[in-house]
Amino acid sequence: MSDPDLIPPRTLKGFRDLLPEAAIARETVVATAVAVFRSYGFSPIDTPALEYADVLLGKGGAETEKQMYRFEDGGGRDVAMRFDLTVPFARFAAQHIGDLGTPFRRYHVGLVWRGENTQRGRYREFLQCDYDTIGTESVLADIDTLLVTYDLFGALGFTRFTVRYNDRRVLNGLLERLGLADHTVAVLRSLDKLHRIGADRVGEELSLVPGAGDATVSAILRLAGLTGSTAEMLGALPEMVTGSATGEAGVAALGEIAQAMDDAGVAPGRVAIDTAIARGLDYYTGMVFETFLDDLPDIGSCCSGGRYDDLASLYTSQRLSGVGGSLGVDRLLAALAELQPSGGRRAAAPVLVTVFDTEGRGEAIALATGLRRAGIGAEVYPDDRKLAAQLRYADRCGHQLAVIAGPDERAAGTVQVKHLASGTAATVPDDNVVATCLRLLAAPPAAPAPGSRRQADA
Amino acid sequence: MSDPDLIPPRTLKGFRDLLPEAAIARETVVATAVAVFRSYGFSPIDTPALEYADVLLGKGGAETEKQMYRFEDGGGRDVAMRFDLTVPFARFAAQHIGDLGTPFRRYHVGLVWRGENTQRGRYREFLQCDYDTIGTESVLADIDTLLVTYDLFGALGFTRFTVRYNDRRVLNGLLERLGLADHTVAVLRSLDKLHRIGADRVGEELSLVPGAGDATVSAILRLAGLTGSTAEMLGALPEMVTGSATGEAGVAALGEIAQAMDDAGVAPGRVAIDTAIARGLDYYTGMVFETFLDDLPDIGSCCSGGRYDDLASLYTSQRLSGVGGSLGVDRLLAALAELQPSGGRRAAAPVLVTVFDTEGRGEAIALATGLRRAGIGAEVYPDDRKLAAQLRYADRCGHQLAVIAGPDERAAGTVQVKHLASGTAATVPDDNVVATCLRLLAAPPAAPAPGSRRQADA
Repeated sequence: MSDPDLIPPRTLKGFRDLLPEAAIARETVVATAVAVFRSYGFSPIDTPALEYADVLLGKGGAETEKQMYRFEDGGGRDVAMRFDLTVPFARFAAQHIGDLGTPFRRYHVGLVWRGENTQRGRYREFLQCDYDTIGTESVLADIDTLLVTYDLFGALGFTRFTVRYNDRRVLNGLLERLGLADHTVAVLRSLDKLHRIGADRVGEELSLVPGAGDATVSAILRLAGLTGSTAEMLGALPEMVTGSATGEAGVAALGEIAQAMDDAGVAPGRVAIDTAIARGLDYYTGMVFETFLDDLPDIGSCCSGGRYDDLASLYTSQRLSGVGGSLGVDRLLAALAELQPSGGRRAAAPVLVTVFDTEGRGEAIALATGLRRAGIGAEVYPDDRKLAAQLRYADRCGHQLAVIAGPDERAAGTVQVKHLASGTAATVPDDNVVATCLRLLAAPPAAPAPGSRRQADA
Repeated sequence: MSDPDLIPPRTLKGFRDLLPEAAIARETVVATAVAVFRSYGFSPIDTPALEYADVLLGKGGAETEKQMYRFEDGGGRDVAMRFDLTVPFARFAAQHIGDLGTPFRRYHVGLVWRGENTQRGRYREFLQCDYDTIGTESVLADIDTLLVTYDLFGALGFTRFTVRYNDRRVLNGLLERLGLADHTVAVLRSLDKLHRIGADRVGEELSLVPGAGDATVSAILRLAGLTGSTAEMLGALPEMVTGSATGEAGVAALGEIAQAMDDAGVAPGRVAIDTAIARGLDYYTGMVFETFLDDLPDIGSCCSGGRYDDLASLYTSQRLSGVGGSLGVDRLLAALAELQPSGGRRAAAPVLVTVFDTEGRGEAIALATGLRRAGIGAEVYPDDRKLAAQLRYADRCGHQLAVIAGPDERAAGTVQVKHLASGTAATVPDDNVVATCLRLLAAPPAAPAPGSRRQADA
């Protein structure tokens, strides 16, 4: 029976609320990324959610325009919500680079909005996380881009992932040699599908490129299909681009990057040359990369990017080259949920301090204060409900420990500390609660044997 | 000379970019707040930036409607950008509280948008940070609201601040006694201006309330003007509300809260009863509070809130009472900038590793990797520029140390570590760089004497 005067609580199609478990997971990923970016000297920036529509549209195509949330504001301005962080960064760089100076490295974590078709499980509001170094053409910036990506996935707890990199100039060099330099974009678009549709179908597409005979197609596929150790690949590449200065520069860069991964102590094979990496977007001009999770190959790249020649040409005549990447936060969260299905918890604090009666409130507050001063998050249950109800609450939220100071304990100057997953409990003196909690959180007791019933009460 | 084909890079009136220094400051405030909220068991949530306009408007007045960014989306829906976090939380609670259960405590950090008049230095996009506990009427939740606010300002580095709290029921009790119970809202609105316009003008306003004679006005002003120690105030209040159960409950709650502040070891006077705190908004029903910085009284309250009876009545017939607060992030950032004018820095990493030549790249990468593994952020300068240029970059960004490994040092197996603010430098063996940096960051050398010229080069 619903009250007709009530407004039905609901969200827009393609939009969603984040409940605590999902919000904690996202906050953890973002905080981890921020710490890693900062450790490489990337600084945060932010730009407005709303901008002039002409600034955001740039030379964007009909598809971009169709997806944009665009409207007239109260002052009659033609405005739109940002649909990525790349266009706002280009505008930002054109506007501020004179003050900031170069090189400039920034990260940017922010929501973007696209009125996309939601049928494929896509959201219309999602979080992007971009990082770039602009104002330098040095391969050291390319190297830092790959290293920060490698460190990022490690810090997120992944061990089985691969950052695959390539250099656009290698393919460009080959196409120069093959007389196909004018058709680079078409070739890139086809190659970008290699992992998805396979070499045969890419070959068919390539053979439609004007001037591409069988020998040409197989030369392109041979480059893209190159495998072997880093040393073997670096040995095989030079003859494919002989005579093309562009191609040779690309091969040299791949070699420098490979050497740097060794210098930085990257785990063998985790950052690897992959000559099939194309990145369909035609603004990349040098190094390009994608990041795959070994155990979830089907979800595609979780973090991609590359080097570009001219970031902000729509807004300034100053040429700003750079290199960067973009972390797919939502894709990564889906992957984490799939790989660690029981990892999420809703409780923000590990300890619940229970309260029995009005007389016990002061002690509960003092106990929680003591825990927090020791760096242990502690939540005080607000109501004087039965202990079983308070422990059910802890169970639902995922607290790890319950601190129980009932009338009996109070009279004896003790407190009960209960480890919730194992059901074990210890009664300790008041002044030993912090030490007991620290110990139990650092080394939790074993879970009860399968089939044994979990204690629901003290 | 501007190119007519370029799009002028610009932001909308009332919107702004955050450059690194400002973005770092904001990120620090938010990360600090999140850590404190979590330590009390508050979990994060998020809601969409865009919602159905009818959901956001609720029974909001003409002012709200005028300020809302509202438009028709591509699917013909009447949508709007959220203008606060309270209305979305009410909608969220109505929709999800059945799954989440009560009590439920959450924090929410998010951007909100209001097409306000920008003349008073207000922005049209700003960050809000709200925290609430719903589904309980316990005074323990009021106490936690005040304690988390107190801890928050301490964690942000403030020592001179006061969280001033009151209970609406005390005034309600007095008004009952005075026969003015029907005019509570008008009285509250006037009292809310007490700090701003003074007792005389508030008294004039109050005398316009129907039924308010001179004795009535002076009784109200006497309550609001009450001063003294906590014990003195708690001693004086009961006779003002004698016979009103509401008023007596309010005085009892103030006493319980005062006791709890002692139990939690709050520094004397930092959380204090202030019977002048009214909070103009008429949805508060019990405890109300505001937070002031002692050294910047003119900026007003930086963090306010209180207890309410019915959060989500627009969306559900389930009564959800609760208590919470809202941190004014932008106001706080302005205050921090005023109190610590030189506190901001743009560098995200404390160490800049300089690079001289192609041969030195490998060592620079290895040095930076070693520093990061020891938990020290290290940025590698990407270009082979003159050392003076690299040090100017460090100066502009605010790095604390420069690690310099030129050809001479390389040949000798040493590295120079330069403390940039003092200009002092030490040459140490390669394997001593991490320890030297840790030492210099923990205990920086004294700055050069006033008037002495800062070294611009090694």
